[in-house]
This record gives sequence, structure tokens and C-alpha cells, in this order.
Amino acid sequence: MAEHTIKAFDEEIDRLRGLIAEMGGRAEAAIENAMLALQRQDKVLAADVVEGDKRIDAIEAEVEKLVIQVIALRAPMANDLRDVIAALKIVSVVERIGDYAKNIAKRVPLIATNTRILEPISLLPSMGQVAGEMVHDALNAFAARDADLALAVVERDTVVDDFYNSVFRTLVTFMVENPKTISECAHLLFIAKNIERIGDHATNVAEMVYYAATGQTLPERERGADMQPED
Amino acid sequence: MAEHTIKAFDEEIDRLRGLIAEMGGRAEAAIENAMLALQRQDKVLAADVVEGDKRIDAIEAEVEKLVIQVIALRAPMANDLRDVIAALKIVSVVERIGDYAKNIAKRVPLIATNTRILEPISLLPSMGQVAGEMVHDALNAFAARDADLALAVVERDTVVDDFYNSVFRTLVTFMVENPKTISECAHLLFIAKNIERIGDHATNVAEMVYYAATGQTLPERERGADMQPED
Repeated sequence: MAEHTIKAFDEEIDRLRGLIAEMGGRAEAAIENAMLALQRQDKVLAADVVEGDKRIDAIEAEVEKLVIQVIALRAPMANDLRDVIAALKIVSVVERIGDYAKNIAKRVPLIATNTRILEPISLLPSMGQVAGEMVHDALNAFAARDADLALAVVERDTVVDDFYNSVFRTLVTFMVENPKTISECAHLLFIAKNIERIGDHATNVAEMVYYAATGQTLPERERGADMQPED
Repeated sequence: MAEHTIKAFDEEIDRLRGLIAEMGGRAEAAIENAMLALQRQDKVLAADVVEGDKRIDAIEAEVEKLVIQVIALRAPMANDLRDVIAALKIVSVVERIGDYAKNIAKRVPLIATNTRILEPISLLPSMGQVAGEMVHDALNAFAARDADLALAVVERDTVVDDFYNSVFRTLVTFMVENPKTISECAHLLFIAKNIERIGDHATNVAEMVYYAATGQTLPERERGADMQPED
């Protein structure tokens, strides 16, 4: 590439990275707020999370447009092209993480305020926190091309999976003992599953970062709590 | 592009379309077999579906490689480039559809054979069939660039959503009345949710096809049964 083209390309890559960082920050905030809305039964905050997801989707569309523009105008070579395509994959994963947070928020108004349901709800925030931290670290690993941090995210996925399996068992037991809460607990089961999937997707991002930084794929591993019998 | 480049490009696009068709066929078969395995409590068939998902993932990786190669070697112009990037997006959706079928299959061995559970299981195959047909039609619409067929898929998504809402209510009622089946019914709830998501993803493919064929986006609509209160 000519020098001015390289400069323009670098600027576009910086813009791409900036958009991904903004998208990641919004997805993290969406997870935190969705969990807070659930704990406090705050329907207004839940509605904010749902509304805020539109901005996350819009950033994804902007990244796609920018990627097509960069490829069309700069015709990047193999390595740069792979980086640009990787950006496209990462934003699609972050968009899904945003969707999971939105889905959690959407269930908040479906869960009737009932003091009996507070006990099973209390299982979820710490699980949500671990998953949110994984998203945070996976995106930091991407920004810094930090293979060690990426690896640490991948290793933490079993924590979320173990959490999920334990929540699943506890919720089923609670439902058996409190049949009147079954409908609400079913929503909590889905929320737990959404958090578990957020952990999986943070792991996917971390695996892409690890591969990009080291050229090596991590050993094949079974992903997600769905892989193990949950009960 | 020079004439021989155009010919090579067309051949690569044909290969891309062939891979997507194969991937779609495998995803459809995975949905059918997962539902069959559930109905028959056939753990061997369920294990086949789980194993077969690896081939779907491998085709996705092949498509990605081919797309990067096509872009790097042929430097396609705006419209062609958009088509190639669309192929990348469609395979990532089909890969997710395959994952949902795999997740359904993985739950089969977790559902204890129990004649009492046969009643709620019987709700699911027709829902699975509608979702499977949507996947089939969405991929046919893609192969034929058929906007009308794509639109018909999008319109059918409400059928799957209504199915899901009805299954959710029926399962919750069944759990209240048969607390001993709660653990199995929780797996059925997740299976119903997976089918509903398959319908959503077939709809996403159909929307992309509609946009590529007409240049128009469909009116913004709320997607997924998660958008409506389910109970």
C-alpha cells in the first residue's frame, strides 16, 4: 500500500477498534443493569436495557459498513484482511451478548413481585457478575491482543457452567417445594441459561483473540453447561 | 475484472453457494433427527446429531476460508463484495441453527423415560416441523434469490412464537400438577425455546435474502416470543 493509504487504513482500523470498545462497554453495562433490574424488580431500568440494545445493534451495522468500505477501498493483504474479518465476527458475538442481556431485562416484568421468589432470585447476581467480568476481560484482551488474559477468560468459563448447574438444581428443587412459583422460576431458569450463554460467548471472543495473538487454537473442549448433564 | 478472473470468481461463488446448501441440508436433517430422537427416546440417534454438528462447524470454517480467499484474490467490487459478506453472515446463522438442534439432542439422554412425560413431549414435534420448514424455505429463498418465499418465511415466524407461548403455558401447568416431572419438563421448556430460536434464525436468513433481492428492509418488527409476555 502507498504511505497515505497505510495511514488511512490505520485510521480506519482505529475507528473499528473504537466502535468495538464502545459496543463492548454497552454490552457490559446492559448485563449489569439487567441483573440490577431483576434484583430490585425495577421495570423502568429493565425497559432502559431493552431500549439501549438498539444502539448496540446500530454499532454492529456501522462496523459492517466500515468493514466493507475498508476492504473495498484498501484491498488489505492476507493478515490485515483476516483482522478485519475477525472484527466482523467479534461484533456479531458482542451483539448476541447484548441480546442475552436484553432477554434477561424483558423477563423482569414477567416475574411477579412475590417475596417467596426473592430467595431463588438471589442466586443469580453473582453468576451475572462473573459472566460480566468475562465479557470485560475478553474485550480488554482483544484491545491489547493479550493472549494470557484471553486464556484466563477461557479457563473461567467452567465457573459459570458450574454456577449454572447448581442454579438449575436449586431452582428445580425450589419449584417442587413451591409449585405456586413454577411460572416465575421457569423465567429464572431461562435467565440463568442466558447468563451461562453470555459466559460461552465471552469465551468465544477470548478464543478468537488467543488464536489471533498466538496462531494456535486452544485444545478442543466441550463448551457450555449443555454439554454436561445438568441434573 | 479480466474475463478469466470473472470465470474463476463465478466458480468460487458457485462453490460458496454449494457449501451453504450442504450446510443447510445438514442443519435441517439435524432438526428432524433431534425431534425424532426426543419422541423415540433414542439416545443413539441423539448422539449422531451431536456428532454430526462437527461437520456443520467444519463447513462454516471452510466457507470463511473461501470468503477470505475470494476477497484477497479477486478484490470483488461493491455489490459482489456485499454478496460475499452476506454469505459469511448466513453461514454463521446456519451454524447457530445447527447448535440449537445439537442442544436439543443433548437433552434427550437427560430426560428419563417415564410414561408420564410422554404427554408434554407430544407438544413439540409439530413445533419442530414448522421451524424445520422455515429453515428449508429460507435457504431455498437464498439459493433462488426469491423475495416472495423469503417474505413467507418471515410471516410464518409468528406461528412458531404462538406455538412456543402455548407450549410454555401448557408445560408450566403440567409441572404444577405433576411436580415429580419438573426436572424433565424444565428440559422440555429449553427444547421449546431452542425450536423457537431456530424459527427466529430462519427469519433472520429470510430477512437478509429479502434485503439482498429487493434492496428494501422489512418494517421493523419485534422478533421472538421473548418479546411478548409468555404467560
